[in-house]
Amino acid sequence: MSDNKKNWVKAEDVARLAGVSRSAVSRTFTPGASVAAKTRARVMQAAEQLGYQVNIIARTMNTGSSNFIGIVTAGFDNPFRSKLLSPLVHQLALHGFMPLLMNADDPDQLAPSLKQLLSYHVAGVIITSGAPPLSLAEEYLQRKIPVTLINRHADLAGCDRVASDNQQGMQLIAAYCRQQAWTNIGFIGEDAHNFSTGERYKALLSAAEDFSLSTRFMTAGGYAAGRAASCELRHCQALLCATDMLALGAIDGLRSLGSHHPTPAVIGFDDIPQASWDPYQLTTIQQDTDGLAQQAVDLLVTRIAQFDLPSRHRAVPVKLIVRNSA
Amino acid sequence: MSDNKKNWVKAEDVARLAGVSRSAVSRTFTPGASVAAKTRARVMQAAEQLGYQVNIIARTMNTGSSNFIGIVTAGFDNPFRSKLLSPLVHQLALHGFMPLLMNADDPDQLAPSLKQLLSYHVAGVIITSGAPPLSLAEEYLQRKIPVTLINRHADLAGCDRVASDNQQGMQLIAAYCRQQAWTNIGFIGEDAHNFSTGERYKALLSAAEDFSLSTRFMTAGGYAAGRAASCELRHCQALLCATDMLALGAIDGLRSLGSHHPTPAVIGFDDIPQASWDPYQLTTIQQDTDGLAQQAVDLLVTRIAQFDLPSRHRAVPVKLIVRNSA
Repeated sequence: MSDNKKNWVKAEDVARLAGVSRSAVSRTFTPGASVAAKTRARVMQAAEQLGYQVNIIARTMNTGSSNFIGIVTAGFDNPFRSKLLSPLVHQLALHGFMPLLMNADDPDQLAPSLKQLLSYHVAGVIITSGAPPLSLAEEYLQRKIPVTLINRHADLAGCDRVASDNQQGMQLIAAYCRQQAWTNIGFIGEDAHNFSTGERYKALLSAAEDFSLSTRFMTAGGYAAGRAASCELRHCQALLCATDMLALGAIDGLRSLGSHHPTPAVIGFDDIPQASWDPYQLTTIQQDTDGLAQQAVDLLVTRIAQFDLPSRHRAVPVKLIVRNSA
Repeated sequence: MSDNKKNWVKAEDVARLAGVSRSAVSRTFTPGASVAAKTRARVMQAAEQLGYQVNIIARTMNTGSSNFIGIVTAGFDNPFRSKLLSPLVHQLALHGFMPLLMNADDPDQLAPSLKQLLSYHVAGVIITSGAPPLSLAEEYLQRKIPVTLINRHADLAGCDRVASDNQQGMQLIAAYCRQQAWTNIGFIGEDAHNFSTGERYKALLSAAEDFSLSTRFMTAGGYAAGRAASCELRHCQALLCATDMLALGAIDGLRSLGSHHPTPAVIGFDDIPQASWDPYQLTTIQQDTDGLAQQAVDLLVTRIAQFDLPSRHRAVPVKLIVRNSA
């Protein structure tokens, strides 16, 4: 690779053209540093003319702290996680951070991936996936690298987390069911160790003590699992699903049984784009992905500024979206 | 930030514990460098004990070339693009590269984003989105930073590109239509300047000169556009859609008209996960996202090794997947 000489413009080149010192160029591109307005203008003009870009690698070497943030996620093809990724990248950019994306789809690859992030001297890590065992986050915290979790448990000191308000969500759903006089309720979740399933189930139990409840915990999440589970719960008046993907599968599972039986109403959780498509028109709880991203980045940024804070947890409000499925 | 002392383990610490020189540690972690087996073993043991990670930032400073690759994409919530992102990140990791993800959703943000990538001294850039004007890639090529395009036009010298074989795809579709004796065909695309729409339409024209063709170019892609366009083309025997999202919308649009008319068959292009869902069962052309990612990274890696190569283009074969929609 070394024989491909890159045409990088150096700060020295800018200084020469502007007729200023190397340090004046450096100060011009350092947020908050002092430099005379006239000097700054000459530097900016020369930089523009030469196509100069600050060398972030060099700045990282000099200051010892990088602006890289690791995002550990799994399953980009999960519509909810892709929906969350956009505002997350956007919020990080607003704070001048650059995301390093780690795919945790392969559990065997996860530990090496998290270790690899250390090589980039990341300023912080955001973990969104359901997959990685949290023990892996310990190594970060030991090095005083902040870790923020989205929609996950936090059993680690110094670890911040943000999650949708699952309790509020299940209360909204329970109230809606009562209003419709549905008391014979089915619940479909991923396995009970999954954070979102676990939290939502627990919240349902406390919000709906008066309901008669049938439950199916599947070994996998997603469309196929929802499709399979729904048939076994066809006797219920309403099926509450821990995620939209389970709910969309449930609708199709019930539809496959034919229309000679009354079919249960179906309610999801997430509000992915597909929830509003014609064949589904899913009544669901809308997670505020912009809010989750904003809170997560705020938690991370404030802890980067001051590592020794107590663990914080923020719940982001949710909304009931009523469509035709219930 | 500077008062949060990070506990980074340094190469010097490893050298001290292992009782070897600083340069022996460095050679141990440099691929291809020579170091005695016994020394390497002592270094590795000390590194493991201390939790040492190679400092990639420092290496980048020393060698002048980073292992960052910019990925410029738009719309993570587009199921095809999310499906492509996974293998792309995976293939880059196999070659020791770290992706820097740039979201090009906001066209105004794109030019600054591409400029920002320069600050990271990226070793190369992959552009997948339909959005960015290619003039922005010129600045990269001028600096001898390789640019690879996925499913895009390349009108720039030294720019490599990989695309699904749209011609083969439309030939497969045309042959299938002939086999079904459908000659009255509708085509739904995004606007004709969109690369995939344009290429697929051109390929259809040359593969199906014997068809009677009605076309609708929409100003937007996606579900809603397909839904709107389909109603105007209900007189056709088959609707060929430039993307699956258009096709899923078309199926729902036709369904909304009621079943008292014979409805056209619908054929898509992409094979996103939703194409196989019950209400759609979409017949479509499957793009090989693993193949696209592998070829794109291969083109990029070989050009990083040697910048002065002629422009290359690779077409990745596609497959017809027959389901119930046609």
